[in-house]
Order: sequence, then structure tokens, then C-alpha cells
Amino acid sequence: LSPTGAYENAPQPSADKSPIAIICGGGAFPGAVADAVNARGRPVYLFLLRGYADPALAHYPHEWVKLGSLATFVGSSRKRGIKEIVIIGSVVRPRLAQLGFDWKSALLLSRLARMFLGGDNSLLSGVAKIFEENGLSVRAPHEVAPEILMPVGLVTRLEPSTQEREDIEIGRRLLHAIDSFDVGQAVVIAGRRVVAIEGAEGTQGLLERVHAMRESGRLRLREREGVLVKLPKPSQDWRIDMPAIGNDTIRQAKAAGLAGIAVQAIGTLVPDAQKFVETAEAENIFVVALPPLDRTKA
Amino acid sequence: LSPTGAYENAPQPSADKSPIAIICGGGAFPGAVADAVNARGRPVYLFLLRGYADPALAHYPHEWVKLGSLATFVGSSRKRGIKEIVIIGSVVRPRLAQLGFDWKSALLLSRLARMFLGGDNSLLSGVAKIFEENGLSVRAPHEVAPEILMPVGLVTRLEPSTQEREDIEIGRRLLHAIDSFDVGQAVVIAGRRVVAIEGAEGTQGLLERVHAMRESGRLRLREREGVLVKLPKPSQDWRIDMPAIGNDTIRQAKAAGLAGIAVQAIGTLVPDAQKFVETAEAENIFVVALPPLDRTKA
Repeated sequence: LSPTGAYENAPQPSADKSPIAIICGGGAFPGAVADAVNARGRPVYLFLLRGYADPALAHYPHEWVKLGSLATFVGSSRKRGIKEIVIIGSVVRPRLAQLGFDWKSALLLSRLARMFLGGDNSLLSGVAKIFEENGLSVRAPHEVAPEILMPVGLVTRLEPSTQEREDIEIGRRLLHAIDSFDVGQAVVIAGRRVVAIEGAEGTQGLLERVHAMRESGRLRLREREGVLVKLPKPSQDWRIDMPAIGNDTIRQAKAAGLAGIAVQAIGTLVPDAQKFVETAEAENIFVVALPPLDRTKA
Repeated sequence: LSPTGAYENAPQPSADKSPIAIICGGGAFPGAVADAVNARGRPVYLFLLRGYADPALAHYPHEWVKLGSLATFVGSSRKRGIKEIVIIGSVVRPRLAQLGFDWKSALLLSRLARMFLGGDNSLLSGVAKIFEENGLSVRAPHEVAPEILMPVGLVTRLEPSTQEREDIEIGRRLLHAIDSFDVGQAVVIAGRRVVAIEGAEGTQGLLERVHAMRESGRLRLREREGVLVKLPKPSQDWRIDMPAIGNDTIRQAKAAGLAGIAVQAIGTLVPDAQKFVETAEAENIFVVALPPLDRTKA
């Protein structure tokens, strides 16, 4: 499933007027997808995940659902003539304060949440498979809302230095070297040194680690040094696991003392690319969108 | 500098009777090196790093020194006719309770400590260079004490399962893929999945992260699942930066819920290999010492 094709075909309004169901986790992505689909004249129907989805989305036709309610999604979609479903948004960190959960329940919820939507590719594929067995086709968010793809050429006025370009290149090569392993969408490079490589902890965990290592003196870097390089992998299922960044990423990168962020154009989801770049500029963080990978080349 | 040659030549008693200076950080390695050199009939002179070195080492000729006292090391060595110096032991985590430091000083100390001995290869090389400019030759710990090299063929009776052998192989291939980057001596693999890759945080940080991800439910693994794979890199300076493991590693792997540890024979330092394997067996952690890398092969 190549996102590039979808992107090129997307600006036309959709001919299909059947509603698209969107299972909405937290963050800005579900709203961005709903707005984009809606603007193209296609109706949406939202399954808002309790405890994650933004209540402001309730202005769209919706129902609130619990995580793991596969039966609800399938039954309700069938009733409404829905044939396509998109899964989008974060469910990793339950909003504890809002929900008033005790910690034990929260941990359990978090586990359930990750089983359902979190970074575990095989489980996500399993869920997608269950939907498809029930006549629902799982679509990639950017297939129905190409607006959320990081565009080619979008960058901050703030540019990487020669040294930082080298760091980006080291990060790109490192990620390329581990392409065939289902891990490591992101790295942090500083002063030609590989500082941290993402595993199961995710990009936020990666950036928090860099912050902690700076705080403890384990990492001795200048103020505003280092680059987050985050790229898609050929092995990823683009429908459910594409690299995503947003304003939170900028704030986490800032807190980690980094100078900038490099992502891949077209191969990265961002809720609002223009606002993302504006936020980055306000925070003195450069953003570089590398050209889409030519997959015919090594 | 190939450790294999040193290992093969080592069992003969040394002809050189000039003392070897050992700059001693924390942990069991400095004592293991001193004992081994001493047993071979070569005198030792210890520079015990205040706040790190084990006071029990004071039965050898020694002086207590502060970190960063390069002048002391050089002057005192010259006075004693010392021509060779070994740097060994951990200085990353100051013993706070013992020293009664306030946190701010401790952070500063930790930073100094890492500048001096911690994982920053270029700085360590710089220190080695300063010693050499002053007529002191920096020797690898295993050159003077080959007993601390993980021997070929040493393993626990507890063996890895077929699945775990696959995980070890994935880890080996991943580390090999990033060989040319100065990072990532260790990875944790579980159920064919790359769970965590070591960056600047070190092996202890890596294992603590795995533990934390299990606790939070971010990682859903069976009890006793996953393998730590820790291997040397061709780019490493064996004199100052060889992978080291010990009983602490076993305890950290156990706390992280892992099933076993794979290292490279000859290419890994261990204070007491026999005791290491016994501790592993007591903790139900398997240990595999992979054959030394044939560097002529890819």
C-alpha cells in the first residue's frame, strides 16, 4: 500500500457517498481526518473511544464506545451501511486526571489499550483482519485524508547547520541499516554520536530518555544540540502504523534539548503541517521533511 | 589490538617485573585484574578512585586519588618506575549514600566521572593519549589479566530454547547491522521482536527500560521471556571500551523478566566467569558465550 499514489489521487472529491467510520483515539489526528473527509463531501461516523477521544468531536455523527468493543464497531457499522473504517489516534496514555482511575485500573486499561491500538503490529493486524472478515475494509488514514501527510518541501525558516545535516544523515543511515527489523522508527543523533535508538518505548519514551540523560549528566551536550530523525520503514503496514508527529513531538524534542526534527515527506502523518511548522519555529526547533524514499534504490 | 592473541599468550608468568598501575573504579573488575596480575608474579600499584573503588583493595600498594587527577597519576607513576597503566571499573554511579553528597554535587561529580572514564570513547581516547604522551602505555585490562575474558564454551546447564536461539540470532544480526555506528553494544529481543536497543544510556539503563515497559503494560511478555544480546563492536578501542558483564547484569536481566544473556566469548569482560555462570544458574537465567567473531567474514 503506497501512500504516494493515494496522495496524488486525493484532491478530487470522493464519488462514494457511503459514510466512513473512524475509530477515534486521543490527540489531534482523529479530528484532522474527520474534517478532511468531511470537507471532501464524504459523510463520517465516529466511534469515540471513551477516555481518549476529544469530546469536541461530538459535533459529528458519533457514538461513545469502550476500547475492545469489536462487536459494537462491527454491528453499528453494518446497521449504517459503512464499508470502510479508519483507526486513528493515540490510546497509549489514558487521561488519568479526567477519568479519576486508580493506578491499578489505569495500568490495566493501558494494557488493553495497547492490545487494541498500540504499537504492536501483529495485534493491530489481527484487529484489522477481524474487521475485514466482517465485511469492513480498513483504510489508511492518509488514504481518506491525504491532508495529514507531511508535504514535500515543507520546512521551517530555521535550517539545520552543516553539522546537523551530518547528524540527520547518520540517523538516516542507521535507520536504513535496521530497516528489515520491526523496530526503530526513530533515533536521536547529536554531534555525530548516536545517542538513543527507539525500541518498544516509542518516540515519546525516546525523547524522555534523552532528557533524563542530559539531566543526570550522562549526556554532555550543548544547549540546543541533537536531532530527532523519524522515518517510516518498508516493513510497516501503512494502514495502521505510519510514523506520526505533532506539536507534542516538538515540545518533547524541545524538552530533550534538541535542535531539530527530520521526518520523511509523504511518509509521515501530521495533524496540521502548517501549524506544526509554526509551532516548531516558535520553539526554535528546525523541521526538515526529507524527500520520499525511492524504494527502488538501496 | 586483538584480545585473542593476548589470551593465548597469557598463561606464562610475566618476565617484566616493573609494577603495573591500575586506576580502579567501582565494581568487581579492578580486584579481579589486580589479583590476576599479582598471581602472575607482577607487582601492582593501585590508584583507588575515591567514592568508587572498593576499600578492600587497600591491601595492595595504593593511594586514594580524586577523579580527574591526571597530574597525580602521571607524577606518582613516574616516581615508581611504572610504565604501564590499566583503567578499569565503573564510575558512572557515585555511591551517594556512602559519600553524603548533595544531589547537585553528585550530578556534577557524575558528569566529571563520565568525562573521565564513562562511555564516551573520544574522551577516553583523549585521556589515554595524555598518559601516553607522558610515557605511560595504556594497556587493555584483559591484556594483563586474560582471566577476565569470557572463555569459549562456558555456558549454563540451562539452555536457550529454539525460540530463544532465534531471538539471539536476531539480536546478533541487528547489532551486526549497526556495527559501523559507535553505539548499540546491546539489544533485548523477545519473541522475535526487537524490544530495546542500547544507546548512550548503557546496559543497565536498557534493562531498566525493559523492566519499566513490562510494569506499565507497554510490553506484554510471558514471565521469563526475552534475551539480552551484548556483543563487542569492531570499532571499539579494546583498551578502554570492551563489553563488560557481571553478577549485576544477571540481576538486572532477571528484574527485566528476561530468560537469558548471550555474549561473545573472548570479546567480553567478566570479573569471575565461573561465579557468573553459577549466579546465572541460581537465578534461572541462561548464559550463552557465542564463538569469537571471525572478522574475515561478513
